[in-house]
Amino acid sequence: MAVQTVASATPTVDLGPAAALSCRECGHRVPLGPVFACEECFGPLEIAYDFSAYDAEELRQRIEAGPANIWRYAPLLPVPADVADKPNLNPGWTKLVDARNLARELGVTGGLYVKDDSGNPTHSFKDRVVAQALEAARAFGFTTLSCSSTGNLAGAVGAAAARAGFRSCVFIPHDLEQGKVVMAAVYGGELVGIQGNYDDVNRFCSELIGDPAGEGWGFVNVNLRPYYAEGSKTLAYEVCEQLGWRLPDQIVVPIASGSQLTKIDKGLRELVELGLVEDRPYKIFGAQALGCSPVSTAFKAGHDVVRPQKPDTIAKSLAIGNPADGPYVLDIARRTGGAVEDVTDAEIVDAIKLLARTEGIFAETAGGVTVGVTRKLIEAGVLDPTLTTVVLNTGDGLKTLDAVAGTGLTATIRPNLESFREAGLA
Amino acid sequence: MAVQTVASATPTVDLGPAAALSCRECGHRVPLGPVFACEECFGPLEIAYDFSAYDAEELRQRIEAGPANIWRYAPLLPVPADVADKPNLNPGWTKLVDARNLARELGVTGGLYVKDDSGNPTHSFKDRVVAQALEAARAFGFTTLSCSSTGNLAGAVGAAAARAGFRSCVFIPHDLEQGKVVMAAVYGGELVGIQGNYDDVNRFCSELIGDPAGEGWGFVNVNLRPYYAEGSKTLAYEVCEQLGWRLPDQIVVPIASGSQLTKIDKGLRELVELGLVEDRPYKIFGAQALGCSPVSTAFKAGHDVVRPQKPDTIAKSLAIGNPADGPYVLDIARRTGGAVEDVTDAEIVDAIKLLARTEGIFAETAGGVTVGVTRKLIEAGVLDPTLTTVVLNTGDGLKTLDAVAGTGLTATIRPNLESFREAGLA
Ligand SMILES: [Zn+2]
Ligand SMILES: [Zn+2]
Repeated sequence: MAVQTVASATPTVDLGPAAALSCRECGHRVPLGPVFACEECFGPLEIAYDFSAYDAEELRQRIEAGPANIWRYAPLLPVPADVADKPNLNPGWTKLVDARNLARELGVTGGLYVKDDSGNPTHSFKDRVVAQALEAARAFGFTTLSCSSTGNLAGAVGAAAARAGFRSCVFIPHDLEQGKVVMAAVYGGELVGIQGNYDDVNRFCSELIGDPAGEGWGFVNVNLRPYYAEGSKTLAYEVCEQLGWRLPDQIVVPIASGSQLTKIDKGLRELVELGLVEDRPYKIFGAQALGCSPVSTAFKAGHDVVRPQKPDTIAKSLAIGNPADGPYVLDIARRTGGAVEDVTDAEIVDAIKLLARTEGIFAETAGGVTVGVTRKLIEAGVLDPTLTTVVLNTGDGLKTLDAVAGTGLTATIRPNLESFREAGLA
Repeated sequence: MAVQTVASATPTVDLGPAAALSCRECGHRVPLGPVFACEECFGPLEIAYDFSAYDAEELRQRIEAGPANIWRYAPLLPVPADVADKPNLNPGWTKLVDARNLARELGVTGGLYVKDDSGNPTHSFKDRVVAQALEAARAFGFTTLSCSSTGNLAGAVGAAAARAGFRSCVFIPHDLEQGKVVMAAVYGGELVGIQGNYDDVNRFCSELIGDPAGEGWGFVNVNLRPYYAEGSKTLAYEVCEQLGWRLPDQIVVPIASGSQLTKIDKGLRELVELGLVEDRPYKIFGAQALGCSPVSTAFKAGHDVVRPQKPDTIAKSLAIGNPADGPYVLDIARRTGGAVEDVTDAEIVDAIKLLARTEGIFAETAGGVTVGVTRKLIEAGVLDPTLTTVVLNTGDGLKTLDAVAGTGLTATIRPNLESFREAGLA
């Protein structure tokens, strides 16, 4: 992917507490702008904030009095203070389900919670990150919201752009399954099929960003990536607030690019530094599908580098074979005393059914990965069942129906009581 | 359907403010119990409440301090006071979207809001009604939650039962489409295919309720129907609270059995009587698909009775050809100065796309019916565009993908800028 290093920042940009972009590798700072790689070392840029004015108690009250969506945390996000008044999908503040039935099945006694992001407007956590990218796009004067995607992101971008009055242009491989095409196309933006595979789609998008034809285009996870990525912090904020302003002891997070896990760690540390939660140890666990497990493989081998893999798993939303934030994930899992584990496709399906059967939550395959990994880590004695544990479900089972297509009728009877009794249903 | 008239009420049942069951036709009262038809006249039973102890200001504060789900209205529902502590799916408090883009397209200047019930746990308003039935089932000592269904209700019952630790048994025609079977089966309850059509399924369920084999079974929309139906009141409560404790001027509601519309009217009137909103005129509009329009046909003909139809429409969740509450709907539409209108399947699809394109909301076909009817009523001068109007979307587009299957790519290009420019996308 071509690296864009020129900071074309507007001095008047108002993104609330966001003060600058800072390189995660060398610390080099540049003004806020639609750039994502350090001009010094090509490292990833992330948002640097100025939180110095905040008083913990005042901030907590301000958050609690805020809207029932991610904008209650506007003081901690790269968005203007009046963001809640702008047209967007207002994602977030999804349920933290006290999963007592699942806890009983898994032998967890310290409290087991499912953070269920299928409750977002387009039914995945992507609404959180796209909402941040949208505000950055507004601030930078962009008029088109764009992305490459094979799934959840396409719908999230199409819906957010529609609501905000942006043009949208989503690039997908031209031979994507019809169901996924429909879910992205219904919002009425441009939906462009690229004759090639997903790598070709990404290569083309990078080319477009560097070309005058791409002027005014915000690619949510490319030139707006530093803003976009911050949306995952809201998962950490919500979990802590919903636990009564308390850190979870253990949290199980799916790994695609690894960005979400690193931002959840960042969010938890911010709450500690701001004095909103008590400073206590927490462990972060990463979850992958065996069919795309570059990070868990590196973790188990004790490596610091992540060797790319060719994905082959039903967990399509996690199927990134060369995860950009893999090394950071390894570092966080090791530093916090967590782990990275993987499960087979069969274990993913079992876990989807387990969650549905115990809590009435129908998760996407990614949710099967986190629940399956949680079960595996408990059985292995790695995850402590006496501690408060939070498991993320980042998407909706309706989007990956194929995964559980084997599920069906438990009985077939004739419409009379005799047949009913014969089937042993009475 | 066999009528069950014996009130087998337990004197100790605690369902909060619910005082008795009362016949909507003759006013005859019986104790709370799993019955649904009057023993005097076979009329439908509904909940009679005792709200006499409530002070308006105290009640308002109590509601506002309550949880972000339907249980904030527990003082107005047939549920025990501690309902929020019991395991259930906690539906409700879905978004009331200020639909400014849609308003602009339709020429509405008085404020147009979409009450988006796709945000419920299983993504339809059925979670609201099933949650009430579940509490009644608990109160009556039932251990199996059941229903007949061809769609949303099956998933809502399966999920609610799983979470609550009930056995569930859902009856469906044995030849239902595989996708719908999966959505119901994933929660792990009994899913029984009946060799026959939907009428055969319903006939069998009535037989089962009257038989000893059905003892301990709560059929959410049969022997628990009076409780179940009350769940729709929460839509009215939420709309008014979200408007700042104000009645909408106009509200557009889909009609299946008609129950939802009658309960929304009941909920609005209760808020007036309780002093929670100012008493002002409001108009209720009913929306049907032309392919199943017995109520709109009767409305337009000036009839008081509803002649059954054989449904043939893509709006399957509204396809009830002989709607039990049809006459009550006619009465409410006429009394409030509203109307009942219908739209073609093509208009339903157009309206689904319109809502998605303007507001980023992907609605089920039922949402296409209400948005389409809203457009039609504005064009006809029946719905006043200068008044505050609320349109219900009761379900999720992911469940009726077939309706918009014609939606697809807007362009196909090769992965290079030249092809991009040729397609006119720059
Ligand atoms: Zn650098
Ligand atoms: Zn009667």
